[in-house]
Amino acid sequence: MPFPKRRLMTPGPTQTPQSARLAMARELINHRTDEFRALIAEAIEGLKYVFRTANDVMILSSSGSGAMEAAVVNAAPRGGKVVVLESGKFAERWRRIAEAFGIEVVRCELPWGQAFAPEQVAELLKRHPDAAAVFATLMETSTGVGHDIAGIGRVVGQTPALFVVDGISGVGVMECRTDEWGIDILVVGAQKALMTPPGLAFAAISAKAWRQIESFRPPAFYFDLSAYRKAAALGDTPYTPAIPLVLALVESLRLIRQAGIENIWARGRLLAEAVRSGVAALGFRLVAERPAEGMTAAHPPAGVDAKLFLRRLEARFGVKLAGGQGPLKDRIVRIAHFGQIDEFDILGLLAAMELVLVELGQKVKLGSAVAEAQRVLSASAARGDG
Amino acid sequence: MPFPKRRLMTPGPTQTPQSARLAMARELINHRTDEFRALIAEAIEGLKYVFRTANDVMILSSSGSGAMEAAVVNAAPRGGKVVVLESGKFAERWRRIAEAFGIEVVRCELPWGQAFAPEQVAELLKRHPDAAAVFATLMETSTGVGHDIAGIGRVVGQTPALFVVDGISGVGVMECRTDEWGIDILVVGAQKALMTPPGLAFAAISAKAWRQIESFRPPAFYFDLSAYRKAAALGDTPYTPAIPLVLALVESLRLIRQAGIENIWARGRLLAEAVRSGVAALGFRLVAERPAEGMTAAHPPAGVDAKLFLRRLEARFGVKLAGGQGPLKDRIVRIAHFGQIDEFDILGLLAAMELVLVELGQKVKLGSAVAEAQRVLSASAARGDG
Repeated sequence: MPFPKRRLMTPGPTQTPQSARLAMARELINHRTDEFRALIAEAIEGLKYVFRTANDVMILSSSGSGAMEAAVVNAAPRGGKVVVLESGKFAERWRRIAEAFGIEVVRCELPWGQAFAPEQVAELLKRHPDAAAVFATLMETSTGVGHDIAGIGRVVGQTPALFVVDGISGVGVMECRTDEWGIDILVVGAQKALMTPPGLAFAAISAKAWRQIESFRPPAFYFDLSAYRKAAALGDTPYTPAIPLVLALVESLRLIRQAGIENIWARGRLLAEAVRSGVAALGFRLVAERPAEGMTAAHPPAGVDAKLFLRRLEARFGVKLAGGQGPLKDRIVRIAHFGQIDEFDILGLLAAMELVLVELGQKVKLGSAVAEAQRVLSASAARGDG
Repeated sequence: MPFPKRRLMTPGPTQTPQSARLAMARELINHRTDEFRALIAEAIEGLKYVFRTANDVMILSSSGSGAMEAAVVNAAPRGGKVVVLESGKFAERWRRIAEAFGIEVVRCELPWGQAFAPEQVAELLKRHPDAAAVFATLMETSTGVGHDIAGIGRVVGQTPALFVVDGISGVGVMECRTDEWGIDILVVGAQKALMTPPGLAFAAISAKAWRQIESFRPPAFYFDLSAYRKAAALGDTPYTPAIPLVLALVESLRLIRQAGIENIWARGRLLAEAVRSGVAALGFRLVAERPAEGMTAAHPPAGVDAKLFLRRLEARFGVKLAGGQGPLKDRIVRIAHFGQIDEFDILGLLAAMELVLVELGQKVKLGSAVAEAQRVLSASAARGDG
């Protein structure tokens, strides 16, 4: 190809709107100014809108893992006990952070790809009534599972434990009603469905969580949420924020508000269905027993090497998908369908996947995956969705 | 003014070169790629060049305070003992971080504005031979003091203690020879003399420091330096980095290497001298007994309200300087002269300061501060410096 184009379709980082990228090219302003405080305030209003919350929202200059650490160290003291619902790499991260800070972890493990039932969590909390918090994951990016956060939230809400949810990649594409579902600490990343470059993360904190946070002194400085709360009272962040990323976030949130969060959720469901239909037609098998709506993880058909497939897709069409992690390394492909990724991208991707499979010697009926996805999209259009 | 221009002259964040800002407007690339790894490698080579070190350099996606936390929690275990040389707001931060993590702090305090003598530190280490580390500050941004890091380094180097230096605002404008001066952990911020937007920080770590870091398990996850070291062996960062800021950093470092770090240090000394001569002619008194070369902090002449002065300077000329912090709040002005700030900016600033003072009712000989600075600059040009 004489003029190669790139098509970033990994589940983070993701494509960023032009207005957000251009905002970063502006001359820097100082952050201790009314001008910047107004931008922070707008960003926080936008995040509350997306998170469906009236709780406090804090902006952290770190990756999503930093916000996870903030949630862990502020939710439970050293020597305290927490429950981690673990069924993938990112849930495992909840546990590893807790262990690094000397917090006792009640492990609740399922094989990667499976989803927790609220009853399981109820049972666990009966056995561990002293658990300070339950840690869950909205969209497990390593497997593409969408967990039943609403259902688990109902269970945890009846106990003194905090309900802490990793919404890093899921929030902004999957339905997530923070207040209605009883999420006490929600952590979200910038570089996924919020269409902002990496380097910012967010935490929404309920009144119940604040009471627990203030009941002990956490081993924390940069991630001490009380310091963020104190600074937020003045419209500030406690440390110098990543200013250009905040400018980008404001732009992306403007686009999200214009589109409407419920429309974005509906579109996530539609694109997910289209992708699942398409890849199924090509013989891919989903990793997730309860698939999420912002991404799809799938095993390629027998005889196709996932790594080779991904490399060829990128070399041939500039499409960058993600591979597997941990035990799924080099065994699966992961496709994002959130943010700026749209119907055109999905149709093109499926057509490109068909060609690459053929070129790798697979028997594929050309157009078959595209046709499956088209049927999904046109049925939706006929119903007047979106 | 019909077309207002901004002139950011705060000691961080600072003006960013156009090439760095435009690099951030590029479409995002994924970080787990050879393309991004090459950029990380180039950034690390550039940082080593600026820091004058062959030690490992890690890139953290956080503010400078995050890198300070990394230095503290990895240098000393909970219950360990450290010495903090405290004479300003940022040195105080070393202590507050250590306290947050249950590390015993031997406080060595001087009034703000004063500088530590190496002999004082030698004396302290004799009394506390079990100190795991000594924490110092190259350029104390709250007071404009430049501490004698070379001298203190010689003292600490004769003991088992690590020498940890906050070079967040000083490195890249003040001479700092990490290896020659025996700095075991140097932390640096992006948004000061490195002319990169805030959101990245750096840590250079000696072999002596690694041995200590690996001797215990720190209460750390996001700031666990061993995780950074492990990822760095593969050319990676352990968590998703702030990609656009890394692109900006690469561009700024290219400009710094082109200019040559010794030339940049010489220019820092020159601009500092010009600013000090100029503000002295206006009746300002320096805060620092040992002034730094990247910024100047000064009390305005009697009868001039610092806050009013700064507000008017900004309204009238678009010049943003910083005010004081802590006990110096609303009492001083702080002027950065690092990064892109040049002779023209300094001359214009002094002229603007003269006019603002006159408009505030002060008796000022117009042109007097400018003339003092001009004499410094032209003497330097006559000597053939720079």
